[in-house]
Amino acid sequence: MTQALVEEEQLNPADLRTIWRILTPDERVEAFHLLARDDAEEFFLGLSAADLASLMRALPRNERRSWMRLLAPDDAADLVQEVPDDEREGLLSLLDDPTRKEVTALLAYKQDAAGGLMNPRYARLRPDMTVDEAIGYLRRQARTNLETLSYLYVIDDQQRLLGVVSFRELFASPPERTVREVMRTDLVTVRDDQDQEEVSKVLTENDLVAIPVLDADGHMKGIVTFDDIVRVVEQEATEDIQKLAGLEALDEPYLDIAFSRMFRRRAGWLSALFLGEMLTASAMAYFEDEIAKAVVLALFVPLIISSGGNSGSQASTLVVRAMSLGEVRLADWWRVVRRELASGLALGSVLGVIGFLRIVIWQAVSPLYGEHYLLVAVTVFMSLIGVVTFGTMAGSLLPFVLRRLGFDPASASAPFVATLVDVTGLVIYFTVASVILAGALL
Amino acid sequence: MTQALVEEEQLNPADLRTIWRILTPDERVEAFHLLARDDAEEFFLGLSAADLASLMRALPRNERRSWMRLLAPDDAADLVQEVPDDEREGLLSLLDDPTRKEVTALLAYKQDAAGGLMNPRYARLRPDMTVDEAIGYLRRQARTNLETLSYLYVIDDQQRLLGVVSFRELFASPPERTVREVMRTDLVTVRDDQDQEEVSKVLTENDLVAIPVLDADGHMKGIVTFDDIVRVVEQEATEDIQKLAGLEALDEPYLDIAFSRMFRRRAGWLSALFLGEMLTASAMAYFEDEIAKAVVLALFVPLIISSGGNSGSQASTLVVRAMSLGEVRLADWWRVVRRELASGLALGSVLGVIGFLRIVIWQAVSPLYGEHYLLVAVTVFMSLIGVVTFGTMAGSLLPFVLRRLGFDPASASAPFVATLVDVTGLVIYFTVASVILAGALL
Repeated sequence: MTQALVEEEQLNPADLRTIWRILTPDERVEAFHLLARDDAEEFFLGLSAADLASLMRALPRNERRSWMRLLAPDDAADLVQEVPDDEREGLLSLLDDPTRKEVTALLAYKQDAAGGLMNPRYARLRPDMTVDEAIGYLRRQARTNLETLSYLYVIDDQQRLLGVVSFRELFASPPERTVREVMRTDLVTVRDDQDQEEVSKVLTENDLVAIPVLDADGHMKGIVTFDDIVRVVEQEATEDIQKLAGLEALDEPYLDIAFSRMFRRRAGWLSALFLGEMLTASAMAYFEDEIAKAVVLALFVPLIISSGGNSGSQASTLVVRAMSLGEVRLADWWRVVRRELASGLALGSVLGVIGFLRIVIWQAVSPLYGEHYLLVAVTVFMSLIGVVTFGTMAGSLLPFVLRRLGFDPASASAPFVATLVDVTGLVIYFTVASVILAGALL
Repeated sequence: MTQALVEEEQLNPADLRTIWRILTPDERVEAFHLLARDDAEEFFLGLSAADLASLMRALPRNERRSWMRLLAPDDAADLVQEVPDDEREGLLSLLDDPTRKEVTALLAYKQDAAGGLMNPRYARLRPDMTVDEAIGYLRRQARTNLETLSYLYVIDDQQRLLGVVSFRELFASPPERTVREVMRTDLVTVRDDQDQEEVSKVLTENDLVAIPVLDADGHMKGIVTFDDIVRVVEQEATEDIQKLAGLEALDEPYLDIAFSRMFRRRAGWLSALFLGEMLTASAMAYFEDEIAKAVVLALFVPLIISSGGNSGSQASTLVVRAMSLGEVRLADWWRVVRRELASGLALGSVLGVIGFLRIVIWQAVSPLYGEHYLLVAVTVFMSLIGVVTFGTMAGSLLPFVLRRLGFDPASASAPFVATLVDVTGLVIYFTVASVILAGALL
């Protein structure tokens, strides 16, 4: 494919984006060089930090400076964080002095804190400028590398944030008023050490394009803009999804992550779940006599326990996602329990009826289940109601318990809930069986 | 809680947001009336469409008009779509004539298409204005209800989009140039019937604040802005998460959705999975003789099949999410298969070794597993490698198969994969057992 591209000697950014993943670093450089300069710049600025890092490391040394200087300080900091420690200094040295200082300051923040997301270049105004002076000043600034002009931040000489004025408000204000008179002082801000998930909530709840980031002393350090937040929202959802499937969040694209790293993130939970699931072998051993006497009971074990697991994973996922979105809070636990108790009983009855009918109808076709098939069918019916109700309750309560204990509710994964429910499901099933089949099969 | 609020006679929007969920519609109105007018407006504009609709329906009739007119046309359309059909006309009649026409036009679009997301009020320029004229024109327009001034759209007299200029570019251009000379003509646009997920991809990949929406004839109909997209990204992730847990996407907040509707969305998949899982009862019945002869085999059935299910759900979730994010495409299937084959063998070996050790060590403590315990341990070891490898392969391939057939890959839910793997897992386990235990237990 690259061969064809090289022959054509021209390429557009959209095509390159499509094939990017399947190219080696060297092929990427080759293809990147085929873009027209302005297309290349657009393409470059749209790359993820990981892709930027690998491209930058593959580019010839003499080209790196100009590309590095194209990046906004927050993007440059993200790139630098993606390269091995011993190459960081080399990349930083390509920047001009003031930018290097900004980037180095950003590197001190955790990547998932507001400080790690923010851009230190925002549009500043002084409170005593007139609206006309401010617009003239911005018109000169607009040529420089500011992240956004949508909001203008009014700063005192100690870099403390006094107010904010949207460009549109400034623009629509009488020319001779001062900035102080038109600015808003009911400020929505975040602290530089706040987690990105909180920043994302504050920004979206207030419908803002950008939000100012202050340090502990109230000095303004930068702004976080919506485009950083879209990535955060996506990233947090991916983390939730991966945790819900019973693995540690990968934090890297699936096809890019090293095999060994992916293996560790999957093997940990899988082994832990396996150890938990071993309790099923103990539970089964406890009922070994019953199984030996009535092998027919063993036939329905996978069906019964998987129903508990499936209903439990539905419930836990609904609650976990609702918690992530802020729809359900810790205080709502009692409402959730009542809802899920009703859901569990209703869903369990549906499955119970299907299970009952299946045994009775099958028996009419081929008599697999012996003379006591009706009692077996009743056992399965009642067990399903019990197991599904228990699964639903366990699945919906586990996220609350985890959050209460300070863990991430998303750890209440489908496999975790299933493992919890499997053991109890076996106990419910064999207990129901020993009551109903007493004197008949047992 | 409301009682205390009423007594205090003052309330801020953040507090109200915190308690909103637990209030009845009437309490919401009561609390809403306690906000200062500007706080109330801010709070109102931050509500979701569903919350807006329930608040609007609970407000006294004489207040509805002014609140309704506060909304941008796209938000008004979303609100109207949330109320019962027979109340829509009533709400629409509260709007002024031009807005009602805009909202009615928006209602014709599907809610999850670009047309359903867009705002028809965007900043328009004519190509022959000078930069100075354009800025002066915008300065007058800035007082009206435009969604954003970040991009200005250059339109001919047939409403066709000629170019776009960012406000910042316009602002930084020499005053006497014409708009045509400073506008960009390499346009990124979407069609009004395009799905919101595609719109979101186009917007984020191009790092835009807003994107123009054109109809089939190239007429500009409106713009979609980033804040709509943050909601789309969240909503699409929620859909993925719910499907991955084996239920239909709820499309409504967990605590708001009617019980009967939630029940149907859960019962459908749960029953389908239950029907599939019934095959395990058939498989078990097929091996009934083996179980009768060696009850010890039954003890490990839950352990073996759940390991297959857990590894399968890890694999399917990784692939589904990577597909949603565009990290993995259909053409990548072979790379994924190779990765997952290696992962499956490695993870299966880990679990196999743990399972083997567990049986050998347990046997030393209490001899539960009979004289042939070593053969049983080898059976479990080999079965786990087989089952986990099969689970991993099935889980990673299923999303590709679903997408190839035109279904949503996210339907490859953990429970779906587990059900697929349970039956095969039983067959693998009993087949391995019949080879290894032949002559000993069987």
